[in-house]
Amino acid sequence: MKFTKMQGLGNDYVYVNCLKEQVENPPEMARRVSDRHFGIGSDGLILIRPSDSADFEMEMYNADGSRSEMCGNGIRCVAKYVYDYGLTDKTSISVETLGGIKYLDLTVEDGKVSMVKVDMGKPELRAEAIPIVCERGTEECVVDEDSLLGDEAVSEYMVETNCKKVIDEPIVVDGMEYQITGVSMGNPHAVVFLEDVKGMDIEKLGPRFENHERFPKRINTEFVRVIDRETIEMRVWERGSGETLACGTGACAAAVASILNGLAERKVTVKLLGGDLLVEWEEETGNVYMTGPAVTVFEGVIEEGA
Amino acid sequence: MKFTKMQGLGNDYVYVNCLKEQVENPPEMARRVSDRHFGIGSDGLILIRPSDSADFEMEMYNADGSRSEMCGNGIRCVAKYVYDYGLTDKTSISVETLGGIKYLDLTVEDGKVSMVKVDMGKPELRAEAIPIVCERGTEECVVDEDSLLGDEAVSEYMVETNCKKVIDEPIVVDGMEYQITGVSMGNPHAVVFLEDVKGMDIEKLGPRFENHERFPKRINTEFVRVIDRETIEMRVWERGSGETLACGTGACAAAVASILNGLAERKVTVKLLGGDLLVEWEEETGNVYMTGPAVTVFEGVIEEGA
Repeated sequence: MKFTKMQGLGNDYVYVNCLKEQVENPPEMARRVSDRHFGIGSDGLILIRPSDSADFEMEMYNADGSRSEMCGNGIRCVAKYVYDYGLTDKTSISVETLGGIKYLDLTVEDGKVSMVKVDMGKPELRAEAIPIVCERGTEECVVDEDSLLGDEAVSEYMVETNCKKVIDEPIVVDGMEYQITGVSMGNPHAVVFLEDVKGMDIEKLGPRFENHERFPKRINTEFVRVIDRETIEMRVWERGSGETLACGTGACAAAVASILNGLAERKVTVKLLGGDLLVEWEEETGNVYMTGPAVTVFEGVIEEGA
Repeated sequence: MKFTKMQGLGNDYVYVNCLKEQVENPPEMARRVSDRHFGIGSDGLILIRPSDSADFEMEMYNADGSRSEMCGNGIRCVAKYVYDYGLTDKTSISVETLGGIKYLDLTVEDGKVSMVKVDMGKPELRAEAIPIVCERGTEECVVDEDSLLGDEAVSEYMVETNCKKVIDEPIVVDGMEYQITGVSMGNPHAVVFLEDVKGMDIEKLGPRFENHERFPKRINTEFVRVIDRETIEMRVWERGSGETLACGTGACAAAVASILNGLAERKVTVKLLGGDLLVEWEEETGNVYMTGPAVTVFEGVIEEGA
């Protein structure tokens, strides 16, 4: 089986062109190829397939063989794959995922894709939809149009339905009070602003946030330091994975939270351990756009059986 | 650059045929290819070169770019590489390493190497040569011919020079008394027999042994449970690396220690986290032979520059 190992901010997957190759048992293959000592070594397996509703389909598996809906770092590499290997000559493409159809814009340099911009959709701020248990009284946290900088239609809906948001809300974790802002980008995020993210003990604090009673479906936590109004740095503790080098939806959530708290402009460079992402929360559409690199590491062949 | 990823008991390296390929800056290449997120992902880089003194030379680099003398799991894969790719048709080969010339016997199945037997040389038992600080009085730990089962010449030398060995000697680590047996296989090992190796806290105990004052050059520690006289299981804490899936010299040291303590026959299956090795301490020669698998995982191509 031919494959290509690609990475976005160190988030690495084995990519297989299923317009040509057949993978009999994707969960088993995902476990096999992902093993970092006995296999190829990756965060998972991404199969590129034809699609009826979009230009291509991205079928994604985690290293443990489970299905994954979508991955911001992974989908950028899908865009690079289909263009660089000549499966398309379009520089704006759509990709079907379990998390819906995603739209991508490709930056091409010397005939190869270097950067990809992904429309990540609208952030979800309603507490119960994230979900986060909102502890403040209804009056205090009800959405009013002025406090919400996102899509107008969403704002209106939130005001009409009297729903709550979680912006700069106190929470006690491990005996200390923190302020969180809750954002869903299809998956739940709690964003915490700190003075020092490099020196913090994320191995200790991350699990305490993840399993806190106010997050009924657990949570991804972004620990963010604002450098200036156009730059933030963050470390991320991913639900079920621990600290990772980069998390695309987490970077979007961190940027949205920075903007909601009046700490940043609508276009923010997010510095992660694995590299930089540019996140823009567009005023007109209310959509979040994430731009970042996609890199081919190597091409290989692995025996089908074994 | 063409490469092959191979593994022995999960100890995985990127192998390059330098009879054909040129690697300009091996330390830098080693760091680049070893990175498990941004590179190919491996424990290091092994260059196969022609040799004046042996059939081939194995030039080995760790993941951090430093030179490594030898690796029992790595050299088995070198043997598989040179045979499977037709660089030799011999099934007994010699390989030059920084740790001296090693001799290997290949088991071929369906035209490919499946198992490799490596002559690991003679174990060094003299305390000061391992090195281990010997605390017992001279009388008690001086080598006598009866207590030593290894090479006769070595035994004689040890008796003549009045040198000390460390066999079943007490040591206090972290407030608890353990019994250690010291063996050097070119690198220092302390072997500890325990009732339960699966449940032990190696992350806590390993570093305490590694940095104990009685090991002036630090130490690799094998925690061993004897299953029967032909089978032992072990976990290994490698000096500078922490717990690893397998350690060839550690398996040899554990087998030698089991034999010296009268717990096992001269041919022992050593069960490691990464798989099994068969270790034989030959009576006539006093040499230790290690037999284990060598596996090709995949072949790939990576761009020279970048």
